[in-house]
Order: sequence, then C-alpha cells, then structure tokens
Amino acid sequence: MKQFTSIHDIPDLQILLNEALEIKKNPYSHEQLGKRKTLGMLFLNPSLRTRWSSEKAAINLGMSVISSTAEQGWSLEFGENIVMDGTKVEHIKEAAAVVSQYCDILGVRCFASLDDKELDYQDFVLKQFIKYAKVPVVSLESAILHPLQSFADCITIAEHRPAHRPKVVLTWAPHPKALPQAVANSFSEWMQHMDVDFVVTHPKGYELAPRFSENTLVEYDQNKAFANADFIYAKNWSSYSDYGKVLSLDKNWTVTPEKMALTNNAKFMHCLPVRRNMIVTDSVLDSENSIIMEQVANRTVAMQTILKRMICTTDIGY
Amino acid sequence: MKQFTSIHDIPDLQILLNEALEIKKNPYSHEQLGKRKTLGMLFLNPSLRTRWSSEKAAINLGMSVISSTAEQGWSLEFGENIVMDGTKVEHIKEAAAVVSQYCDILGVRCFASLDDKELDYQDFVLKQFIKYAKVPVVSLESAILHPLQSFADCITIAEHRPAHRPKVVLTWAPHPKALPQAVANSFSEWMQHMDVDFVVTHPKGYELAPRFSENTLVEYDQNKAFANADFIYAKNWSSYSDYGKVLSLDKNWTVTPEKMALTNNAKFMHCLPVRRNMIVTDSVLDSENSIIMEQVANRTVAMQTILKRMICTTDIGY
Amino acid sequence: MKQFTSIHDIPDLQILLNEALEIKKNPYSHEQLGKRKTLGMLFLNPSLRTRWSSEKAAINLGMSVISSTAEQGWSLEFGENIVMDGTKVEHIKEAAAVVSQYCDILGVRCFASLDDKELDYQDFVLKQFIKYAKVPVVSLESAILHPLQSFADCITIAEHRPAHRPKVVLTWAPHPKALPQAVANSFSEWMQHMDVDFVVTHPKGYELAPRFSENTLVEYDQNKAFANADFIYAKNWSSYSDYGKVLSLDKNWTVTPEKMALTNNAKFMHCLPVRRNMIVTDSVLDSENSIIMEQVANRTVAMQTILKRMICTTDIGY
Repeated sequence: MKQFTSIHDIPDLQILLNEALEIKKNPYSHEQLGKRKTLGMLFLNPSLRTRWSSEKAAINLGMSVISSTAEQGWSLEFGENIVMDGTKVEHIKEAAAVVSQYCDILGVRCFASLDDKELDYQDFVLKQFIKYAKVPVVSLESAILHPLQSFADCITIAEHRPAHRPKVVLTWAPHPKALPQAVANSFSEWMQHMDVDFVVTHPKGYELAPRFSENTLVEYDQNKAFANADFIYAKNWSSYSDYGKVLSLDKNWTVTPEKMALTNNAKFMHCLPVRRNMIVTDSVLDSENSIIMEQVANRTVAMQTILKRMICTTDIGY
Repeated sequence: MKQFTSIHDIPDLQILLNEALEIKKNPYSHEQLGKRKTLGMLFLNPSLRTRWSSEKAAINLGMSVISSTAEQGWSLEFGENIVMDGTKVEHIKEAAAVVSQYCDILGVRCFASLDDKELDYQDFVLKQFIKYAKVPVVSLESAILHPLQSFADCITIAEHRPAHRPKVVLTWAPHPKALPQAVANSFSEWMQHMDVDFVVTHPKGYELAPRFSENTLVEYDQNKAFANADFIYAKNWSSYSDYGKVLSLDKNWTVTPEKMALTNNAKFMHCLPVRRNMIVTDSVLDSENSIIMEQVANRTVAMQTILKRMICTTDIGY
Repeated sequence: MKQFTSIHDIPDLQILLNEALEIKKNPYSHEQLGKRKTLGMLFLNPSLRTRWSSEKAAINLGMSVISSTAEQGWSLEFGENIVMDGTKVEHIKEAAAVVSQYCDILGVRCFASLDDKELDYQDFVLKQFIKYAKVPVVSLESAILHPLQSFADCITIAEHRPAHRPKVVLTWAPHPKALPQAVANSFSEWMQHMDVDFVVTHPKGYELAPRFSENTLVEYDQNKAFANADFIYAKNWSSYSDYGKVLSLDKNWTVTPEKMALTNNAKFMHCLPVRRNMIVTDSVLDSENSIIMEQVANRTVAMQTILKRMICTTDIGY
C-alpha cells in the first residue's frame, strides 16, 4: 500500500475490516512493528481528533510521531515555471521531499478551498504531495475525501450490522457555515463497496459530484429516505453545483426524534464536530441509538490498520 | 484517584509528600508503569512550564504524551439546549468525550475569564470537562485553582522545613495586568493542610474568596506579616470583590531586601513567570534564599506523583 | 561539548565528520544512548526542517523530545535592572533556567532582528540563553550563525568530494525579502576549516562581517568565481554594512545552466527553503547535479552526531 487516499487504494475492504476488528480487540499485538519507524504529519489545516487518533494509532504500533500545523504565512507554491518573488516561501516540490527525509510515512491534511472547484476536485494539493513525497502518503482529509473517517465509519457499521442487509442513509442537514463535501463524497464511495442499501437525501442543489453519486440512489424527500433505515448518517456540506455556497439553512432537515421514528430503530452517526440542534437535536444525539463515540474510537483503529498495512507491505526505512 | 483538581482530592497529603520525595530521589523507579498509557493534554490557554514539566513527568513513567493548545477560533459551546448556529464549533459534551477516546488520563488547562465571577468560581469549564470526560482528569490550572503548582510548592517547603513549625506568608505584590486568583486560592488551601502557621497579607480590596480564606489569618500590614516568617510566597492577583480589577499598583508591596530583613531569614518563593522589580527586586530574586528554581523542578515531581497514583489506583486502559 | 553554537565548539572537524558518516551508515547503532535523556527545543522563530530533523535525530538515539514554538506575545525581557511593568512577561534569566529543569539538552532558535546590528552580532539572545541555562545548549540557528546547517553541508561536501582539492563557491543570489546573514556567515566559517579552496561572490555592498570573511577570497565577478568550481552554494542574505537592507534584486545573479556550465560540473547546493527562478532556475535545481536533498537528509545526521557527542562527553542527567 503505497498511499491511502480513497477506497480505491483498498483492494480488499472486507479483509481490511476484519483486520481492523482484530486490531481493536488486541491494540498492542503489533507494538514492535513500528520500531524505528516515524509517522510525520503535516496539517495545512488545523485538527484535533485526526491528530490525536493518528498519534495514538502510531504509538500503539511503537512508531514515533512528528507533526506540524502550518503556521499562518507558511504558504506553499504549487505552480510550474513560477518566479517566486511573492509571498510563497517554498515550493511543494521541495516541501514534500524535505519532510519525506524525516519520516517513513507522511500524513497530509489539506482542505478544499471551496473557491476553485476544478483544483479542489483534482485533489490538487494532496496529489502534489504524493507526486513529490519520497515516502507513502496517508490522507488526513483532502479537498474531496476523508478516507480515514469513512474507514472508521465502515468499522462502526460492521460492528452494528443487523442480520439483514442494512439500509444506510446519508442525510444532508443544515449548518451556518460553508463546509467541504469531503466527508459526504468519501462516505458515498465507501458505502458503494459495502454490502448495504445506500441512499443519499438532501435538498435540491446539494447533489454530490457525479463521480461520487453516479451509482447512488438520491431521494429528495428526507422522510421517504428515512423509512426503514438501519443507519442514519447526518452531515452538512456546501453545494457542488453552485460551488461552495450555502443554499439552505432549512431546519426541516435537522434530524429529530420524529424523523428517527420513521426508521427501523436506526443508529445515528456523525463524524463530529457536530452543531447541536442544527444538524441533529440533543435528544437524538444523546440517545442510546447514537453511536458517534464509537466512530470516534474507531478513528484510532482505522489509522492503526492502515499504518500496519503500510509498514507490512512497503519497504520503508531510514 | 479519579481526578486531581484540588487538595480535596488528596486524602493523605503527608503520605503523598513522602511519595513525591521518594520519586524525586529515584525518578526512573517506575519507568515501566506508564507503558501503553497516554497522557492527553488540552490547553485552552497557552503554557510553557506546565506543559514541559507534565511531559517530562509522563516520560519518566514511560507514558506517551499527546497535547494540543487551542487554536484561536476553537471555541467550545457549554450551554444546554443551544441551537449551535453561531461561532462555537463543538460542544463540551463531544469535545471532552472525544479526547477521552485517545488517552488514558486527560490534563486540562482553562483560565478564569475574570469577567463572569459566578461561572469562574463554579470552576465551570473544568467541571464540564470532568463531567463529560470518560477518563481521569488532572487540572493543569483552572479558573480558581492551580493544584499542581501548590503540590510542587508543598514539596519545596517540605524540603526546606526548619525544625520548628514554620511561618509561611503569602504576600500580594503589584503587577501591571489583571491576573487570576488561582495560585493564591490554591496555595491557601494547601497551606491549611500543612503543619505550618499561615498568614496572608495584601492591600484592602484584595481579600480572597471566603471559601479559600475563611480559616486563614489576614494581616493588612505587610511588615507585620513578614515578621519571623520562614517562607515568603509572593504573587499578584486581581480583586475578588471588585472582580478581576487591578485596584493597586503600589510598589510599597514589592518584596525588597529591607522587607526580607524582617523575616527569620526566610526563603523566597514565586510560581513564575515573575515580573522583576514589580513583584520582587532583582536582589531578592537572585539571592541565595530564593528557591524559585526548586519550585520549578518540583513541578515535574508533583505531576509524576499524581500520574503514578492515578495509574496505580484507577483501572485505566485502552 | 558544553555547547554547539559554531565551528569553534568543534576542536576536531575531521573526526566529527567521520563520526557523522558512521552514524549515517548505522543510524540506530546508539539507540540506547539517549535513554532517560530529553531534548528540549525552544523556537523563538518558527521552524519546519530544523524541528523535524532534530526530533528524528533525537528519536534515533532513543531520546525523548519536548518542543515549543513561541506564541505571539511570549516576549522575553533581556535587560538588566528593568522594572517589568510593560508587555514582557518573563525574564531570560528565569526562562532559560526553567526550561533547563525539564530537559537534558536545550535547543534554541532565535533569528536576527536585522534591526539592531550590534545586539545581533553579539549573538545576544543565544548568549543569554547559554548564560542562564543549566544544561548544554545547541543552536538551532542564531542571529548570526546556523552551525547545524553548516555541519550538514560539510557532510554533504565530504560525501561528494572529488579526488583533487575542491573549489567551493558561495554565491549571493536575489530574494524579495531581507534575510539574515546566518547561513552565509556560518558556511564561510566552516569552509575555512575544510580542506577546500573557498571563494565568496556577491554584489558590492553584500560583504559579510569582517570576522566571517577575513580569511576568505571575495570575487565580485560571479562568472570568474564560478570558473572551475566543484560546488556552488547559493544563498541570499541582506546587507551587513547597510544593515538588514535589500540592496539588489539583480537577477543576473540567479544561478542558471549557463553559469553552471562555467564550473567543473559542479554540484549545486542550497539550504532551503529556496525561491525558484529567483535564487536558481528550475533547470539547475531539478538537475542531477543538485544535491539539496542530501543536504536535507544530512541535517538529521548532523544533529544526531552533535547530540551523541554531548551525551557522551557531558555529565547530563535528571
């Protein structure tokens, strides 16, 4: 595994899920594996849970960790043939190669601009890091995908899977600020590889990019979508078509007990941080059916599984 | 020990002090104890000596450390039944539970607002963290108390204890900015549990909150207070009654050699950082009687003693 | 080795270079040496490659690492007999002693002000840290020198040394912002101790401080300087005589393939970060003769060699 940036880097999701459940049972079973290996993490955008869960995952494997959050002002140049006489202090070509000299696996976080749709949807920044890095790269959330979150979500769904083929619903919900589509895109991709019936529901105008929604059933009526659902995954995202815009703050889309009553006693999921009483009411979030803290805990398991596989399948070293 | 937030979490101060002195002599005697244990630290306000001493303490026990200083903008919501449509991105309920998933012991620093006296004196932020965290919590200084500092101060006093019951004086001293009362409150509490004669001296208007001063002798004449003292502990704090205000910059309260001459060759103490020639003159701070660097060194010992006890008395794990 | 601040702390450069090459071959050969030892690092100015390379070096030796980057607002007082009633919150006397309590070796980064030439060229801030620290100090770049970079550069030159005594050229090159002279000063000092012919070339007005250039040949014609060179080291610096000023943005000084063609198939070096097409063209930087990434990798080797010697030759401990 030379990179972990999306489901497409995983040829064997079911096997990886089994590995993850094994690691969860015995988190210290490979604590010598990471000896003499260092995880470097570069956050171009700040992070709390991704950093902490990734550090814990590395520690559990016996790895060392070095991480930096970009200072304001550390702005990278990405252009070709550019005369660097402005404010950009370093080119991605050097930056990615430099950090590669000091770690064995490189994690990179880089959010969407929500401004330049084309660059964002090329996953340009992450791709440039991968192009110029000399070590395997793990996405810690990119402009368009958040694969570690999705993998953790899959582990959580696997743990709560009912006997029947479950119905999983991704529902848009209102949020005061414009957010990236990364979590929604990524969850959609992973669900298409899981043995589930997957439905996305959102107001008109919030359609995901074609490449992430083409095999997915869209139901614009949230109530219909919720009928018989086993898992409700709530998340806000900004518009893809009217790129980066907030088109609706309609609180009829907030997940309430009344809406959860339409489901098959569904589990409630969210990737956090969550805006209470915007995305979901207190009553649903604090209910027994809420499995958000299991998702949080599984972030460590997901990262540990990926790191373990990278160490085992890649010839990395000093 | 499920939490360390004040002297009231310590049923046996003398035993704990002996443990601390033992640890100071043999700092690596328990370097396997923290294996597979992680200390997570969340600084809602920045820190240098608390973070470094706590990291060193954890390292000495073989623990791993993960820490974050809140970025500007990471502002938590603490209210109940709030529609989170403003600038607060995460509720304390999730935040505390989330970080608990990635560590075995959680340290939290949260300063007083010096604005909302009622909330500050409920120690509201720390209490909310404790309420929603899933792991034991250590205060790294809260709105009203700084127990790790006080414990380090007690260790330092124990090391310099004269044969007789010593007289310990906490003196207010001037400072250009409004500071919390946490160190003064906390020191007063701990002194009431030590075998010492304890006196507080300050200008009128700087009385500590009743709950921290009720068993304490207050002497408004600094000279009288200093007479025969064995330990002078200088510290600035803002007014409790006229909450958070600077009522005086009177440099007659600065600790000088003349004032130290009134004492029984007293040791000089301060928790640092210290404003030279405001709180205390260079001559006193740089004198042989100044034991500020021993206080600094004992911060590591204090934290290590608390972490050791938490690990030994709490069933913590992955 | 009580400090590492310049070539003058190294009595035996050739022996140290051999040690470094040995460490590079076997980076984990002393991974028990740093047990129970902590490297503390204080960055008064931000850092990426120095922090990561230093952390990796310490990890390779089995040391722990604690590091802080100064928050805006953590401004130290350096004056004597100052009444600290302004914005400076802590005196260097306490700050340096405090951090010394929590680590065994202290790294400090402090850039030039480019404003107060006299203070900068006393290396005042670093010297004050050394004066008041209680543990050995490693410069992570000071106002006037960057010895870890120079040592890494020497290792890189040693690895590419031709059979004949090589000609090494340090060339000024244009940059839009005023930069310190530290790298250029330091490289000049170290080259004077290497078995090389050393030439500096720059426009008039960019003469290095006398103490760093007195034994050095200066050639104002860049083309003449490049003739028969085996190593071209490019770097921008601001004026020493017209202190801290940018006197020229003349792109005739940019290192181009045409200029490299004047050399003896020279290797191209730069300490990074580098402004592409200002300092050097893409074509030179991306050519086979560019050994910038070896310089980057050797930063770890340099720091590891220094830390190893400090541990072996100094009685450091808890």
